[in-house]
Amino acid sequence: MLHKLKIEVCEANLALRDAGLVILTWGNVSARDRDTGNIVIKPSGVSYDRMLPEQMVVLSPDGAVIEGSFRPSSDTPTHLVIYKAWPEVGGIAHTHSTHATAWAQAWRALPCCGTTHADNFRGTVPVTKPLSDEQIAGHYEAETGNAIVQAFADRSPMDVPACLVGGHGPFTWGRSAGHAVENSIVLEQVALTAMLTERLRPEASEIPSALVDRHFLRKHGPDAYYGQRTAG
Amino acid sequence: MLHKLKIEVCEANLALRDAGLVILTWGNVSARDRDTGNIVIKPSGVSYDRMLPEQMVVLSPDGAVIEGSFRPSSDTPTHLVIYKAWPEVGGIAHTHSTHATAWAQAWRALPCCGTTHADNFRGTVPVTKPLSDEQIAGHYEAETGNAIVQAFADRSPMDVPACLVGGHGPFTWGRSAGHAVENSIVLEQVALTAMLTERLRPEASEIPSALVDRHFLRKHGPDAYYGQRTAG
Amino acid sequence: MLHKLKIEVCEANLALRDAGLVILTWGNVSARDRDTGNIVIKPSGVSYDRMLPEQMVVLSPDGAVIEGSFRPSSDTPTHLVIYKAWPEVGGIAHTHSTHATAWAQAWRALPCCGTTHADNFRGTVPVTKPLSDEQIAGHYEAETGNAIVQAFADRSPMDVPACLVGGHGPFTWGRSAGHAVENSIVLEQVALTAMLTERLRPEASEIPSALVDRHFLRKHGPDAYYGQRTAG
Amino acid sequence: MLHKLKIEVCEANLALRDAGLVILTWGNVSARDRDTGNIVIKPSGVSYDRMLPEQMVVLSPDGAVIEGSFRPSSDTPTHLVIYKAWPEVGGIAHTHSTHATAWAQAWRALPCCGTTHADNFRGTVPVTKPLSDEQIAGHYEAETGNAIVQAFADRSPMDVPACLVGGHGPFTWGRSAGHAVENSIVLEQVALTAMLTERLRPEASEIPSALVDRHFLRKHGPDAYYGQRTAG
Repeated sequence: MLHKLKIEVCEANLALRDAGLVILTWGNVSARDRDTGNIVIKPSGVSYDRMLPEQMVVLSPDGAVIEGSFRPSSDTPTHLVIYKAWPEVGGIAHTHSTHATAWAQAWRALPCCGTTHADNFRGTVPVTKPLSDEQIAGHYEAETGNAIVQAFADRSPMDVPACLVGGHGPFTWGRSAGHAVENSIVLEQVALTAMLTERLRPEASEIPSALVDRHFLRKHGPDAYYGQRTAG
Repeated sequence: MLHKLKIEVCEANLALRDAGLVILTWGNVSARDRDTGNIVIKPSGVSYDRMLPEQMVVLSPDGAVIEGSFRPSSDTPTHLVIYKAWPEVGGIAHTHSTHATAWAQAWRALPCCGTTHADNFRGTVPVTKPLSDEQIAGHYEAETGNAIVQAFADRSPMDVPACLVGGHGPFTWGRSAGHAVENSIVLEQVALTAMLTERLRPEASEIPSALVDRHFLRKHGPDAYYGQRTAG
Repeated sequence: MLHKLKIEVCEANLALRDAGLVILTWGNVSARDRDTGNIVIKPSGVSYDRMLPEQMVVLSPDGAVIEGSFRPSSDTPTHLVIYKAWPEVGGIAHTHSTHATAWAQAWRALPCCGTTHADNFRGTVPVTKPLSDEQIAGHYEAETGNAIVQAFADRSPMDVPACLVGGHGPFTWGRSAGHAVENSIVLEQVALTAMLTERLRPEASEIPSALVDRHFLRKHGPDAYYGQRTAG
Repeated sequence: MLHKLKIEVCEANLALRDAGLVILTWGNVSARDRDTGNIVIKPSGVSYDRMLPEQMVVLSPDGAVIEGSFRPSSDTPTHLVIYKAWPEVGGIAHTHSTHATAWAQAWRALPCCGTTHADNFRGTVPVTKPLSDEQIAGHYEAETGNAIVQAFADRSPMDVPACLVGGHGPFTWGRSAGHAVENSIVLEQVALTAMLTERLRPEASEIPSALVDRHFLRKHGPDAYYGQRTAG
């Protein structure tokens, strides 16, 4: 079942490791099957060194295990909430990458300090609001998903396909698992560069919106001219 | 004698090197044999590139060399004090990893700034009190062990399996040598992230205890749901 | 056409990746053919892992595609402006390398804090002036080139073969694509070291011009004695 | 001539590269032959990727080329001054390693913030005084050596086998080329950790001299108990 998607999700998880965004058994990537709406996700606490496509877990949109002998990632409810809220999303990645996590732990949104950021994220990457002790004690992982969705109440999640979960770390998404992983890679790099920028110039502000839009749209807009015509 | 444990200890020492936590001949890992109480530990000043299981030194709980033609690690008395004080401990690791050492050199306890920390350490990682000149001139390495044990006077060493030795560097432990090494890896990562978090938000405080407990217990508590049922 | 130069440009692009200065499809290197004035440049958005010399695009000095089935780099107009303004330039490199980009995002010129800097750049590396919204909306990439050229109104671009484009990142150049890449490597290293120097001594100033000149000229002057007689 | 020493010096130079302390053609290592007093040193500006023992240059103690078809390192006069001043020195290494260079560029001596430092350097690593414009214009490289020797006017160069040349970078030495390289590796690591320590605790002071001595002497003193009896 969903053999190709399992390979894609497994490779996307390994790509997080290869990019240095996860160590040990941290992080997870999932993807949604466009036809059935079912979700394929990494199993919980499994070593990257021995990860195989057939270990990926298949879930219904509500989270019922349809196939797989492993427990799904403990963060699964967060993924499910995001998929339910945003139909455009085809893949989600979660890491504890160093600099994105530092911004999340500082409970600060990530400002758009340069064109590298604007190439992938059309403006500030938001940070979630704190959960109450009741939310933490209750459906904690689903509440984390809700907090992410609420952070995009007045913005398009496809314009800024990333969110910092306060006190925890980043989630990114995209049309596919591969795009979600690419966004995790870019997010970590711009989180690092923004931190260094702020050190060099504490009063640093975001670049003008004309520049943000020019860069985002030359790569992702209807008249994009970055990349080859066949590329995404 | 203790052939399997020697392999385990040798591999744990090499894992420190592979994780980038030690260079040259720095660092050491030991393990305790559950049956006899004997300790297996890395020899002193031996190159990681030529390290072999049969070079590991076997000691009685009091530190007498039972087997091995090499001198044990110069930090051996520190390990022995910890094993004697805490029966649950099956393995100990010591590194000079960059960021954990920086906190130790700053004589600061490591605050719990996020869930990555809480996943492995249930709250602040303590720093030891300074030794007197007499303690330094006397049984220095054993006094270092005493300072670690005293830092846990009112806490469980298995809830927070790590300590920063002020002016020196980190020690970690666990049920086995492998767990001790994993805790060294996590400690270095959260020491780095906490430093970056503080830079982004100087007044950063620890995450609420409800969140610390949720993360620590979902992985290590009696109802843990992180990882697979067969995993530790 | 220009087979050898295509190989040179392809290898120079891969050298950026191997030096850790670019990830994903970021960055680009071009070179100018001394005989025809034609430009060879990296195609836009192509993976470094599958990059081949025959994918390089050949352009006339005005930017018309003479050969190649791929779109040239989206930054091509920036390169063309630089080649037109400075006849000595034989190669240009553009990266988003972490620390050079941080200085660019902070809109700060890079001070010459030590001899490592002076070995390759004879003094401060300038930062461009901001573009107006009209310039951003218009011929954005060509205007970026104009801003670089204007930053050298009263200096020789061969004495300081690098410029920080504010809010964006660094461009470097040299007599060949290989020299441009080497300058990108040095720029990233001195951008990092200057940042650390400033942290250790906030009031740090540039080294005396006598020391700048001694180091620059012992390597690049008419009586250079660094390197072997046959080397450049 | 001096075949074994050439191999040793070549390998020591490559070890700098492998430890990440030099890039491009930066850095250099030399050694002194105990019998003749002749010096073997890296050629100037030669690529590490193609470095061979037979390229090493043999010099008389006064710097006359005795053997070799390559120019010696442009920093050769600095090495010669150090060898002449300090008979115990058998090898010298020079790098532009990131964090040691940052302290040098900040013209700050490196404080002994922890036992990792004390294990190899018995106290503060000094920084040289600035050269005058006349010294820079004259025998610049020899004057650099003089400045290093003067920084040890009242200390033993074997207790602290390292010096920061202000505005430039570090030199280290030891009984052999290999020990000089090991000291460069340790210096870079403690330069990094000291910088992080200062960030965590701006008022950080050096560790007590009792602790410095305990660590330095347990490894290098007459009653050293670190390492194996046969080791150095």
